[in-house]
Formats: sequence, structure tokens, C-alpha cells
Amino acid sequence: MSTTPTSQPSKDQLATKAEAWSALFSEPMSDLVKRYTSSVFFDKRMWQADIQGSLAHAEMLAAQGIISQDDFASIQKGMAQITKEIESGEFEWKLDLEDVHLNIEARLTQLVGDAGKRLHTGRSRNDQVATDVRLWLRGEIDLIEGLLKELQLSLVEVAETNVEVILPGFTHLQVAQPVSFAHHLLAYVEMFGRDADRMLDVRKRVNVLPLGSAALAGTTYPLDRERVAKSLGMEGVSQNSLDGVSDRDFAIEFTAAASLCMVHVSRLSEELIIWMSQNFGFIRIADRFTTGSSIMPQKKNPDVPELARGKTGRVVGHLMGLITLMKGQPLAYNKDNQEDKEPLFDTVDTLKDTLRIFAEMIGGQLNPATGKKEGGITVNADNMRAAALKGYATATDLADYLVKKGLPFRDAHETVAHAVKLAQNKGVDLAELPLAELQAFNPGIGQDVFEALSLEGSLNARNTLGGTAPAQVRKQIARHRARLA
Amino acid sequence: MSTTPTSQPSKDQLATKAEAWSALFSEPMSDLVKRYTSSVFFDKRMWQADIQGSLAHAEMLAAQGIISQDDFASIQKGMAQITKEIESGEFEWKLDLEDVHLNIEARLTQLVGDAGKRLHTGRSRNDQVATDVRLWLRGEIDLIEGLLKELQLSLVEVAETNVEVILPGFTHLQVAQPVSFAHHLLAYVEMFGRDADRMLDVRKRVNVLPLGSAALAGTTYPLDRERVAKSLGMEGVSQNSLDGVSDRDFAIEFTAAASLCMVHVSRLSEELIIWMSQNFGFIRIADRFTTGSSIMPQKKNPDVPELARGKTGRVVGHLMGLITLMKGQPLAYNKDNQEDKEPLFDTVDTLKDTLRIFAEMIGGQLNPATGKKEGGITVNADNMRAAALKGYATATDLADYLVKKGLPFRDAHETVAHAVKLAQNKGVDLAELPLAELQAFNPGIGQDVFEALSLEGSLNARNTLGGTAPAQVRKQIARHRARLA
Amino acid sequence: MSTTPTSQPSKDQLATKAEAWSALFSEPMSDLVKRYTSSVFFDKRMWQADIQGSLAHAEMLAAQGIISQDDFASIQKGMAQITKEIESGEFEWKLDLEDVHLNIEARLTQLVGDAGKRLHTGRSRNDQVATDVRLWLRGEIDLIEGLLKELQLSLVEVAETNVEVILPGFTHLQVAQPVSFAHHLLAYVEMFGRDADRMLDVRKRVNVLPLGSAALAGTTYPLDRERVAKSLGMEGVSQNSLDGVSDRDFAIEFTAAASLCMVHVSRLSEELIIWMSQNFGFIRIADRFTTGSSIMPQKKNPDVPELARGKTGRVVGHLMGLITLMKGQPLAYNKDNQEDKEPLFDTVDTLKDTLRIFAEMIGGQLNPATGKKEGGITVNADNMRAAALKGYATATDLADYLVKKGLPFRDAHETVAHAVKLAQNKGVDLAELPLAELQAFNPGIGQDVFEALSLEGSLNARNTLGGTAPAQVRKQIARHRARLA
Amino acid sequence: MSTTPTSQPSKDQLATKAEAWSALFSEPMSDLVKRYTSSVFFDKRMWQADIQGSLAHAEMLAAQGIISQDDFASIQKGMAQITKEIESGEFEWKLDLEDVHLNIEARLTQLVGDAGKRLHTGRSRNDQVATDVRLWLRGEIDLIEGLLKELQLSLVEVAETNVEVILPGFTHLQVAQPVSFAHHLLAYVEMFGRDADRMLDVRKRVNVLPLGSAALAGTTYPLDRERVAKSLGMEGVSQNSLDGVSDRDFAIEFTAAASLCMVHVSRLSEELIIWMSQNFGFIRIADRFTTGSSIMPQKKNPDVPELARGKTGRVVGHLMGLITLMKGQPLAYNKDNQEDKEPLFDTVDTLKDTLRIFAEMIGGQLNPATGKKEGGITVNADNMRAAALKGYATATDLADYLVKKGLPFRDAHETVAHAVKLAQNKGVDLAELPLAELQAFNPGIGQDVFEALSLEGSLNARNTLGGTAPAQVRKQIARHRARLA
Repeated sequence: MSTTPTSQPSKDQLATKAEAWSALFSEPMSDLVKRYTSSVFFDKRMWQADIQGSLAHAEMLAAQGIISQDDFASIQKGMAQITKEIESGEFEWKLDLEDVHLNIEARLTQLVGDAGKRLHTGRSRNDQVATDVRLWLRGEIDLIEGLLKELQLSLVEVAETNVEVILPGFTHLQVAQPVSFAHHLLAYVEMFGRDADRMLDVRKRVNVLPLGSAALAGTTYPLDRERVAKSLGMEGVSQNSLDGVSDRDFAIEFTAAASLCMVHVSRLSEELIIWMSQNFGFIRIADRFTTGSSIMPQKKNPDVPELARGKTGRVVGHLMGLITLMKGQPLAYNKDNQEDKEPLFDTVDTLKDTLRIFAEMIGGQLNPATGKKEGGITVNADNMRAAALKGYATATDLADYLVKKGLPFRDAHETVAHAVKLAQNKGVDLAELPLAELQAFNPGIGQDVFEALSLEGSLNARNTLGGTAPAQVRKQIARHRARLA
Repeated sequence: MSTTPTSQPSKDQLATKAEAWSALFSEPMSDLVKRYTSSVFFDKRMWQADIQGSLAHAEMLAAQGIISQDDFASIQKGMAQITKEIESGEFEWKLDLEDVHLNIEARLTQLVGDAGKRLHTGRSRNDQVATDVRLWLRGEIDLIEGLLKELQLSLVEVAETNVEVILPGFTHLQVAQPVSFAHHLLAYVEMFGRDADRMLDVRKRVNVLPLGSAALAGTTYPLDRERVAKSLGMEGVSQNSLDGVSDRDFAIEFTAAASLCMVHVSRLSEELIIWMSQNFGFIRIADRFTTGSSIMPQKKNPDVPELARGKTGRVVGHLMGLITLMKGQPLAYNKDNQEDKEPLFDTVDTLKDTLRIFAEMIGGQLNPATGKKEGGITVNADNMRAAALKGYATATDLADYLVKKGLPFRDAHETVAHAVKLAQNKGVDLAELPLAELQAFNPGIGQDVFEALSLEGSLNARNTLGGTAPAQVRKQIARHRARLA
Repeated sequence: MSTTPTSQPSKDQLATKAEAWSALFSEPMSDLVKRYTSSVFFDKRMWQADIQGSLAHAEMLAAQGIISQDDFASIQKGMAQITKEIESGEFEWKLDLEDVHLNIEARLTQLVGDAGKRLHTGRSRNDQVATDVRLWLRGEIDLIEGLLKELQLSLVEVAETNVEVILPGFTHLQVAQPVSFAHHLLAYVEMFGRDADRMLDVRKRVNVLPLGSAALAGTTYPLDRERVAKSLGMEGVSQNSLDGVSDRDFAIEFTAAASLCMVHVSRLSEELIIWMSQNFGFIRIADRFTTGSSIMPQKKNPDVPELARGKTGRVVGHLMGLITLMKGQPLAYNKDNQEDKEPLFDTVDTLKDTLRIFAEMIGGQLNPATGKKEGGITVNADNMRAAALKGYATATDLADYLVKKGLPFRDAHETVAHAVKLAQNKGVDLAELPLAELQAFNPGIGQDVFEALSLEGSLNARNTLGGTAPAQVRKQIARHRARLA
Repeated sequence: MSTTPTSQPSKDQLATKAEAWSALFSEPMSDLVKRYTSSVFFDKRMWQADIQGSLAHAEMLAAQGIISQDDFASIQKGMAQITKEIESGEFEWKLDLEDVHLNIEARLTQLVGDAGKRLHTGRSRNDQVATDVRLWLRGEIDLIEGLLKELQLSLVEVAETNVEVILPGFTHLQVAQPVSFAHHLLAYVEMFGRDADRMLDVRKRVNVLPLGSAALAGTTYPLDRERVAKSLGMEGVSQNSLDGVSDRDFAIEFTAAASLCMVHVSRLSEELIIWMSQNFGFIRIADRFTTGSSIMPQKKNPDVPELARGKTGRVVGHLMGLITLMKGQPLAYNKDNQEDKEPLFDTVDTLKDTLRIFAEMIGGQLNPATGKKEGGITVNADNMRAAALKGYATATDLADYLVKKGLPFRDAHETVAHAVKLAQNKGVDLAELPLAELQAFNPGIGQDVFEALSLEGSLNARNTLGGTAPAQVRKQIARHRARLA
């Protein structure tokens, strides 16, 4: 393919873009319209992905002989210069040039002339932007995977030192059965572990190359799309150009996964907040995650968990916004799609900040002097134990005890309800009823019942896979340690 | 009330806030936590409301003798200085001071000393922030009312010059009956008129003063809350302090009203986009609301309507976020509530920009030289008429004609269906069938049927209140002109 | 207008609708498609509104001479018969007839012949369905207004007997200041009062007549739309036919108002659930609103508040569904709109059930024998008081005390923080510190400080409008009593 | 383990559940509360999963010696009887028994006595319901996978016969470039293919066994949970009992995947609706998927695509409802979770109906007589071609032609814009400009330009992977055929 320049001097179309889009346009945009339609002030964060994608595209164009090796060298040189300018803050972002893509391309053409103009051969902004956002998001997912692991590790570490600490397990926020505090924390490790798995599934569908779809119908140039995918580390190439430029599934799917993760954060936050309330007093978080009150001098408020609970709404709102955005759009690319970026960017920022801060708030931060983590949550085991002794937490254990004596479970359940009623009337726990009174409910009850009715007895008895017995909890901790290593 | 200073030198607690919230806090916040919990970089836009509210509060404190008139004068002077600093861009916003309220109060104390510290008497940040956001939102609603009126006027103006222009009315995007283009535009005037009404209903509930609720339980100072409400132009005073500090109904209600308005914008946008598609060619919008393509030289894309349609998702997402935020929160104030601001601010910005831009895109902008508006939408009446002649738009008129000849409507409907079938088979419109063929369906059909089957005949026949007959449309235009004057 | 029958025998088109929609259709619907597109099994609940609307339309048609008085009489007779059939359960609803409107019209024509066929003159299903749903919803709003009043009354009644009961007011779920339990309940009265106001605003926009808009363009018959509006008790007539048939704002606006109301319910539920948890033990709800566990014999779970909290999601989901539904729809009616009904119906059902059940759960139900309400929530004032004595709830009162001694508020705040720190270290409440120790923080402190530090002192001190002082709370109760009478 | 019955006669606790939950409850539920809290009328659809799960549990209990083999045999016999009763419609579902689980267990105990009561050993309703809904959903996902394949096959089949049919590809609904209709359809195959992949990812996380988590803390019985998982075909066992009973991620994740699928359906629907509009006339769908109008005799409306577009809102609403439901819930099970079922069930129903109906609407249904599919969409290739000839669809091809002559792309783009302007002024297509006039823009243009400007030339030129050239499209069809075989 010839790349001989024509005799005509080549004008820089982009340089005059502010005046008119092209010969077809009879008037420039008003400032309000420019502001309304431009994206450069939020999409410039994708500049690295944009340059990365352009270089891979240019390398392939040269390999295929679509542009000359000299042009490729010029493009590389220009991009290196632009990278330096952006990193140093010298790069001048122009609203007139709409977005990150045109800003970089215009500067490139300024720097290297016609070679810069040839970069756009065989591609369009439609496939370019789709490529950039995927590259960028893939990197962010990798960071999120790391943060999810850190948070899980923090939870596992706190669990490790609290296997024998007993708090009341709740259902319906009513005392249900005693559980190990470690066991409780590991429930969140399961959740965040699922989040990590889900993100990996999302990543598969993010990491696909749309470049080469051009505007919507593919390109007339003999591109080698697989070469570009390979050099960008992508797992595949989109198979349909119309879909390639208009697909935003990956953004919705990511935001849905992020929403679920924030729902988990909101549940954990709810518990931290309740546990810190004076009537519980189960834990404290370090002062730096709390704030005081401008009016009440005694206050120390759990701001971080509350904000995180609130930010769940923010991320869920973004999910709703993105779905509404795509609903009912005809093929192929429509400008509506530009609205995918701000919610996506904010979702990533919110999720990353939240995970990072929770990992530290739960597990503390490394003290380089001691090599140990400090400043994580403080556990008040006494308050937990006292709470577990309320509410007849071991009533089920009495029923199970009776089943082992031969009662059908349903009958045992009813029998124990009567025993609880008696204990309530007397204002005591089941374990505080004399043996004789217990035997009145069932003559098979023996002295060993008090072991069953103790918190430790109850805990140790739940010694099956997934149960709260310390032996099981330790097995889980070991499994997580291995998995997260 | 004595305001004698104590002997101890008064330290500026706020000045050292970065180090510790108060004596109770053993460690400062980390930078990440500060960034996560601070709001100053988005809530500083409320600075005018904050100063306005503080001055009204201080005026009342002085009137009640809670602070001295000298203190009030100092506060006024300090606030004037701060206003100047903010307006000139000299004011230094500090992340460490969390929010707009503490930034201003800290600076005030710097400027005027103890008087500044006395400003916070009888209030808390909880009621202060609730007051500020209400004051600010009230002002924005007033701006939105103005923009909704402008947009309605634009639509009415275009309607005025298009009363006799006929396009096919659609149901199910299938040709239904001919309608006046003016009538079609006035449907949107109804919608935006309802939006304006709804905003006024919201405004009533926004314009209520929570100040004096203090942190949550009211205050020990003899405040005159009605005086403050009156001086701020508010319509009432919140009656319960717990509700006063934690109520965010007004933010949700506003965002719901904004969402409905954006749904209307999205419907209008959808129509503009379809009408601009080559197969319709009903209208054009001015070039400055469109953009071209980086790859397809012939393109002129309706970017603004598409973005507006997309931004509907954004606002709806904010609504969802705000509801999720408030769901299940116990009384009274929780830090989650701080997350109300960004969605609210962005909703206001998006709605205002969209309304302003649509008013101009539809109706054009005033040319000061001619005193006329220019550059609104361009109507292609020929294409509209051609489209109205497809799809048997006047079939209902034939049925109505037959009813006037004595047929029950249901029978007339069936008869016309047969006539349409014949016309379809012949590839002609109903009006192109010879009278004899029409009479075969019903002997009562006469020559006057062709008047009924014409577009103008159809239009004029719908001459009841709300109908599309030009006479009715002109009445509606007059009504809107009077209403919007 | 002549109504002479034609010579042709009039077939009943609707009777054969199952075979084909009209002469234009070459094949019947499959059963799956019928099920997918039909609405009769959910929209039949609007049968009364449908008949009511049809009778008002027919009355006007006769008054205008469009149909004969004999036809009107036949229609009345037929509708009376149909009413009887539906009420007795004899009416046979047919899937083939799609919706409630065609089911009733088909039966009417069966019963009274051509008069039935003439009923549809000058209207279309598009304006008919819009009218029916508005009539139906107006009635439901009136029921909801009643239920909101009942719930407010229940809360006021419980408040009345708990003015002097003190619980800790929370912010951030941390003990903040003591509040009257009555004051706390009245916060919800404010919320539900706003809900009632909002519903009245919605009602204005629901209670508008679209009938006469016909399919989309108005009608060729000389209808008197205002007459119909008046006979149906509607406040106005829609002014644009395209808008009349396609507007679903009222459904969205209602669902948004219902969502806010459910958010309030969710907040109250959250508090009930926390208050019932053993570590709080502030209240109990009657057994009939709780359930037990199939495995834990001691359990008594607050099922109703939990379900109500969960059903918030349901209603919010309907709001989001409705907005998504309308986004981007071109004018005028599209079949998408049929999907408005199920979410609207379910929202009404959920809201009504929830309000009814909460009114009874809070306030109890009338015992006809005693004329008193029984079985509402049970208040455990001792536990509330004990909790209020934790967490330095009166620290602000000490600061206010110091301000009255002349300290600027900010300095007083800092001083108290030090006092709290000392008390925490000693494990006592502020009121338990000896006077001498308190005086070390500020020499101005006197014996009267202990009054300020008492729960009752704190409460009584907040004696401004909206504050928690019993005097204020009693005024509010009186205001609500008057307002709700 | 002894299973000797005790001497006391065993009462059937469940039989009297209507009177009181257990000895602890002092009053029965009111009817309204029963209705509000019961789930049997919607969760009974899980009866097969419930019985399947119970039998696997019982088999394991017997294998572990926790119940006797005789008991297991009795349970099997009872369950067989219950299956027969439910299938025949004889089974009496009781509101008093709350849910499907208690209804079946109560009947089982009626039928087989104490063996029935022993079935609940080592499990709770909390883990039972979680197991049932997972089993049920797994089956539904498998059905959905089948339906997604059918729909993809329908699209591929229609694509196969339309490879050479050319329509205008749109961006921004403006004519962009010519594309093969097959290529356009295959874009949807990509989308539905991704949906199928996503559902498989969801299935992995659905297909995990929570049974054995008991109420929240695990069980005291020596269960073999892996045995149960294996006999139910599940891929794993939940590792934490608190998470096991409270996790609803899978429901949210499924609904998110379903929402995305419905978004794809909404996009296809939007296009079908636009394509059927008279000004496009690209396709027709069979009459049985359309309906007429009660007033306009000529109407044939695309009801099914419109309803499907509308039902997108329904499913998205369910997603938002489910997320709202779970936000902020503390561990472990709360009654809120019961609200997961109706949205999940309705999502499954809506998605399945929609996919089934779209597969038939697009591809037609098999005529057993001919062995061929009939009644799918009808393509009007002439109208598509005519539309592709509008709007300068091949302008990009002219630019690409100039690039091949040596112009940088950006310059070629600008040159063509001038050519389009000329053609617009003359009211002709680019291909209708004489060669001389084209050469005025660039002297390198030769006779071969007209091949580049033809629709077929444009199509064939886009012959890279994912492009619209028929050669590429045929490769994709072959790939899909192989993939879907």
C-alpha cells in the first residue's frame, strides 16, 4: 500500500475543529453545547489506555504495511512525548477537542505531522473508545482483586485471634444461638471471596478487543486484529462489528458486581454500627475512622461504616443509571453511550476506596517498626459473652439433647418452648433452672444437660462442615490462608 | 445572659482540628479517611446558603439576647469578608476542615475571634446542613421554574408557526391518524407544565426551616425559630427536632420530580432522533447541536438529544441511589446522609443544562439585531405530509363517516377493515379508491366521503377540547401564552 | 344525528375476536402470545371504574344526542346486569378478550345488542384505559389517606402515654442526648403527615379526565368532556389528546410517593427491630405480629417489621420499573404502557396492607367490650432509662451550662470532652463525678450542674418549638389531635 | 443413636400451628398478618425442589444412622403420596401453614407420623428454603439456556437467508454505512450468546448446597453434607453456616443477568418497532404477534416487541428491589429475605416467556407437514436497499479510496465532506456525481471509484474479522452453527 504524500499541503483538520466539525457544518458549537457534549474532563483519566491502544494499533498497521515503519516510529516518538507532557501536567487539555482521544491525536499530529493523521486509519472513535474503556477497566479490576484479597486477609487475621470468642448469633436480630466471633467474620470472607470470583468472570468479558470494528461495519484495511489483541494481552476479539462498537454489557456487569460487593460492605457496616452502639459495646474501631460532633462533646461516631453503607446507594444508583441508559437503544453506537463513563469511573473509585479503607479499619495497618498490624478493630469479648447469655441462646441445644434421648425433633421443640416459658417467668436462663425442674419436662434429662446448655458446649456441638465449632472454624481459616496466599 | 469571657485564654479548637477532633480522640485521621469522609470539595457550592443561614441565625441570637449586638456586628463583618474572599477565589478551602460549614466557621473565628465561636450557639451541624441544603435547593428550584417556562415558550412559539403542518400521529409507531405538528409539540408543553407544577409542590416541602433542631433534640437556648424562618423567606418551621435533622424526603422528592422531567426530555429526544433519521426527514436541528464522525465524512449526528436521553439514566440513577441511601436508617442523623449531596447537585446541574439547551435547540436564540429568534428546529412539512399519506391514516374517519350514516361503531370499524384490505391489495390509499368501490362496502357512502378521507378533513373533524383541529390548537396556544406570560 | 340501523344484520365483532382482530388479520394469536399480551387477569380489578366511566360517557353521548336515550337506558340496564354478575362471581372473564374493557363491552353487546356497540362512539381503548386507571387510583389514594391518618393516630396515642418516658436519642446509633419516647414517635407522625400531603398533591394530577382524547387525536363527535369530568367528580379535563392517552406521570408520581412512605416504614421497622433485640429490650410487639422458629424453641421474631422493611425494596423496584418503562417512548400510546398496571396495583396493595398492619401493631385494636385499644406495642421504660444513662447523653448539657457561665460554645465543647475522658477512665457517668472534680475543669461550675446533667433536666431544657421537652411534646400532640380530628 | 420413642404420646405440633406457634405465643395471628407474612401462595411452585431436597436429606440421615432406615422408607412413601396429591391438584395448601415447606412437612407427618417429625433433624427452615430456591433456580437456568440457544438459532437461520440483503447501518439513527442484514442480526446472536455465558457463570454460584447450615450456626448432628450435595447434583457445599442461610447473592446475580438479557431484548424490540414503522417498512412480523385497534380499523401494532420492551422495566425493577432488600441487613437470616421470591419468580417467568416468544416471532415455528419453519419475520429487501441509498452511506468508502491513493485519512475525510456538500446541494448521491466533478476534489480519482461507492462494493470491502462483508458473515454463521449444535 502506497503512503506517498499527495502534492497538496496537508491541513490539520483537528486544529480547526473548534470552528467547524467539517465542511458540512455551518456553525460552531456554543459553549454550553460544548460543555454538555464534551467528555474530556472526565475521560482524560483513560489517557494511558488510549496511548497503549494507539501504539498497539500503529504497530499492527506498520506490520501489515498499511503505514510505513517510519510513520510508526514517529507515532511512537510522539506518544512518548505526550506521555511525558501528561505525566508532568504540562499537557493542555482542550474542551474544544471533546475527548481524550481527539486531544491526544491532535497533539500527536502537531508533533509528528502526517504520521499522526495516519494513526486513525482503519479505526474510528467508536471502536477506539470501546477499546480504551475495556483496557482501563481491566486494569482496575486487577486492582480491585488485590483489594478484595487484602480485605479478606484482614478479616481472616482478626478471625484467627477470636476463634474462642463467643457472641450471640442473631436471626431477625433476636438472639438465636452462640457463635464464634471468628465464624461470624468468616461469613464476610465468603462474601468477598464470591465478589472476587464474580469480578474474574466479568474480567473475561471485559478483556475482549473491539478495535477493528471501525465505525460500525468493520474496516476496508487489512487489519490483523488478533495481533493487536495479543499485544494488548486481550483474550479475544469481538466477532461482530455492530456489537463491538455498541456493547456496554461489560460496564453494566461490572457495576452489578460492584453493587453486590457494596451490599456486602453495607451489611458489615450495619453490624459494625450496631456492635459499636453503647447497648452492644461489642467492638470499637480506631479513632481515625470516626468523627466527633460539633455540639456533643462525648461523641465518637462510626463515620466510615456509615458512609460506606450510604455509598452503597451511590453504586446501586449507577447500576440503575447504566441500565436505563442502554434500554431500548437501536444499533449501533449512539451518543447516549458517552454517559457510561462517569458512573463507571465513580463506581471504580468508590469501590476501591471503600475496600482499601475497610481492610485497614478491620485489620489495622502495618507498623514497620514491629512488623505487626496495629489499629484494627478492638474486640470486647466480655460484652459479647454477656449478650450471648441472654435470650436463651442454647434452647436449641436442649431440643437436640432431647432428640438424642429419642424424642422426635418437633416434640422436643415444643417441650423446650415450655421450659423457656418457665425460665422467662422466673427471670433466669435455662442453665439456671435446677435439674429437677428440667426433668419435669422430660424425665430423660440428666446432669449432662448443663454441658449442652453452656455456650462452649453449644459451640463445640456444631462440629460439622460450615458449623461454628472452633475446630471447624480453624479448618476454614487454614483453607482461606492457603487460598489467599 | 452573661457573655463575660472566662479567665482562660480561648484556644481555637477548629484550628487544630486536623490533629484531633477533641480531647477524646487519640489519633488523627489518615489522608484516605479524610478524603473518604470529607465533603468540602462538593458541598462548598452551598457557601452562600451557609452564610445566609448563619447571618439569620446570628441576627436572631442577638435579638434574643443570646449573643451581644457587638458579636453580631463582628459576625456580619467577618461574613462580608469571607464572601469577598470566596467570590474572588482567595478563600482557602481545607480538606482538614471537612465541609463548607467548618471551613467558613473556622475562617470566621480567625477573623473575629470569640464572636465567631458564639455563632454555633443553639445549633448543630446536623440542623445547619439541613438548612443550607434546603435554602440552596429552593434557589435552584426557582431557576428550574424559569427554565421550564422558557422551554414551554420555545415549544409554543414553534407550534404557533406550524398549526397547519400535518404529520402522521403514531400509536405503536404505526401511522394512526393525521395530527397538527403544533398539536404534537403542545403535548410536550403539557408535560413540562406538569413538571413545573410538581416542582412547586416540592418547593413547599423544601422551604421549611429545620434550624433550631440542634443535634437531634432541640436546644437549650431560647431561640425564636419563626423569626429565622421569616428572615430567610421560609414558609414554616419543622415541628420535630429528630425529624428536622434526619429528613431527606425533600431531596428524594425533588429528584423524583427531576426524573419525571428527564423522562419527558427522553421522549422528546427519541422523537427528534427518529424525525431526523433519513427515512423520516421531518426536522433538522441546528448544526451546533450536532457533531460529525471521525471516520464518516457525511455524518451530522443529533448528539444533544441523544445525550439528553442518556442523561435520563443518570438522574434516575441518582433517585435510586438516594432512596437506597435512606432505606432502613434509624433516627436521627446518620453519616450516610452526607451522601445525599452529590446526587442532588448533579441532578440539579443536569436538569438545568438540559432544559436550557433544549429551549434553545427547539426555539432558537434571540438575534439582537433583528429581535427575532433564530436557529431553532427546521421543519420539513413536505416530508411530514408525505408520511401522513401512508398507512391509511384516515381509516378511522371513514368509520366515523359510516357511523354518521347510522352504523354502530363496531360494525363500521369492521367494514373499513375490509376496505383497507382492498386498498392494500391495490397498493393505493383509501382516498384513491373509486367511489363505486367504496360504495360496495356500504351503499350509504357518498361523494362527500373524500372530504372525510383528506388529511385536512380528518384534522378539522377533531374539533373538540384537546383535539387536533387547528381551531382547538389555536385555543390551546392562546391559553399557554396567557399562562406563561 | 341519525341512528337508523342499516339493512345489514349487525354481527358481533367482539364475539369472534378470538379468531381474528379484524378482517386485516390472517391468523389468530397463539395461546402463549395471548397470555403474554393479555391483561384481563390483572386489570379486571378496575371493573367498577370501567363501568362508572362508561356510564358517564354514555350519559353524555345521550345528552349530546350522539346516541339515543333508549340506547343509554339499554346501556344502563346492561351495566347493572354486568355489575351483578361480577359481584356474584358469575361473570366469565375471557383471556381471548384481552382486557377488562373488552370483556365488559362484549358482554354488554351480548346483553343489549347495538346499543352496546354504540357505547364506544367517540372514545378509544387508549383514553378509556387511561380514564379507568385514574378513577381507580383516585379511590385508592382516598383509602390510603385514611390509612395514613389511622397510623398517625396510633402513633399519637402511644405518644400520649409516653411523654415522660426517656430513651437515648441516637445519632450514628451512638448515644447522643436523652429524648422523650413520645417525641421520638412524633418524628414518624411528621413523616407520615408529609406522605399524606404528598398523596394529596398526586391526587390533583390523577383526578383529570383523558376521556375524549380518543385514540390519540381527539374525536369527530361533539363530545361534552367537561360534563363527563363533572359527573365523575374529576377536577379537570386533559388539554391535549396525544398527552391524554400517553401520560403515565401520575402512576410514576404515585409510586414515588408510595416509595417515600415505605422508606419511612422501613426506618420505623429498623428501629422496632433494634428496640426488640435483647440488648436493647426497649419494646415488645404483640405475639400475633411475630413468628417463631422451626428449630429454635425460644424465638419470637419481629416478622412484620422485617417484612415491611423488605417490601420497601418491592415498591422501590416498581418505581424503577415504571420509570424505565416510560423512558424514551415516542408519542403517543405504545403497548409498553400496559406494563404500568401490575407494578401500580402491587404498590397500592403493599402500601395499604402495610399501613393497616402498622396502625394496629403500634396502637393495638379496639376491644369493643372496653372501648379501648389493646395489643399495641409494649414499652419497657426501665430499659430505655438504663440505656439513656449510658454514653454520656448529657455531655452537651454540661457544655450548654458552661456557655451560660460565659464560655464560648467551642471552648465549652472542648472542656467537656476532657471531663468525659476523665469519667470514661473512671468508668462513671458525668453526673457521678464529684463537684470538685468537675470544678477542676471550670471553676464556674456549681451544685446546680447536677440538675443539668440529669435526664429530666436535659429534657426539660430543650423547651423550644420542635424540642423534646415534655411541654413541647404535649403541644405537638395537641396539634396533631386537632389536625387529625 | 437411639430412636426409641418416648412414652408420651406425640402430638402433631404443626397441626395446631394455626392456634399458636409454640407454647411461647399467647395469641394467634390475625388473618391480615397471616396474609402479610405467608408465602405459600407464591412459594408452592418450589414443591418439587422441596421434596427433592427433603429426600436427599433423609437419605443421608439414614445413611448416617441419625434416623432409621424404616423412617426413611416412611418418608419416601409419604413424599410419593404427596407428589401424587400435588400433581393431581388434590393437595390442600393451607395459609395457616405459612409456606410450602411447612405445608409439605405437616402433610407428611399426617401421613407417616413420627418419621415425618424426624425429617427436620439437623436442618432448619433457613437452610431448607435456601436449598429449595437454589435447586429450583438451577433448573430454571437450564431451561433459560435452552431458550437462549433457540433464540440464537432463530436469528442465525434468518441471517442465513439474508446475507446479501443490504440495509443502512445506523449510528445515532443516522445512515452510516451499508451493512448486511445478516450481519445486523448476528450482533444480537453475540448479545444472547454472552447472556448464555453469563447464566452459566451464575449457575456455578447457584449450584452450591447450604443445607446443613441449620438455623445459622450449623448442626449438632453428624451430617454428611457432601453426600447430600452429590445426590442433588450440586457442585459444592457452603463453607460458612451464617453465610449459607443469609446469602442471596445468587438471586441478585441471576436477576442482573436477566436484566441484561432483557436490555438486549429491548434493543432488538426497538429496532423491530422502527423497522415496522411505515416510513421504514423493512420488515413485518406475523399477525399473531400483533394486535389491532378498537377504533382505527387499519392498525396492526407490534404488540409483542413493545410489551417486551416494557417488560425490561419490570425485570430491572425486580433487580433494584432485590438489591434494596439486602442492603444493610445484619447477619444472619432476616424475614426481609422472604421478599426475594416474588421478584425472582416473576423474573424467571418474564424472561422465559419473552425468549420463547421471540424465538418464534423471529424464526417462525416448525410446520410438521413440511419440516420447515414458517411464520417468522418477513424481510422487505427493497425497502432496506432504498434506505441504504439515502444518506451518503458510502462516503467513508470514498475517503478510504482516497487514502489508498496516498492521502492521510484525516485529509481524505475533509475532502469527502466537501464532495457530500456538493452532492447534497445537487440532491444526488455521491455515486451519481459525474467522474469529472469527483476528480475536481482529488485528481487521483478514477473510474473504479464507482465500484467503491456501490453498496455491494462497500460491503465487500469490509472483509476483516467481524466486518460486514458477506464472506465474513458466512464464516460467523458457520461458527455459530457449530457452537450451537
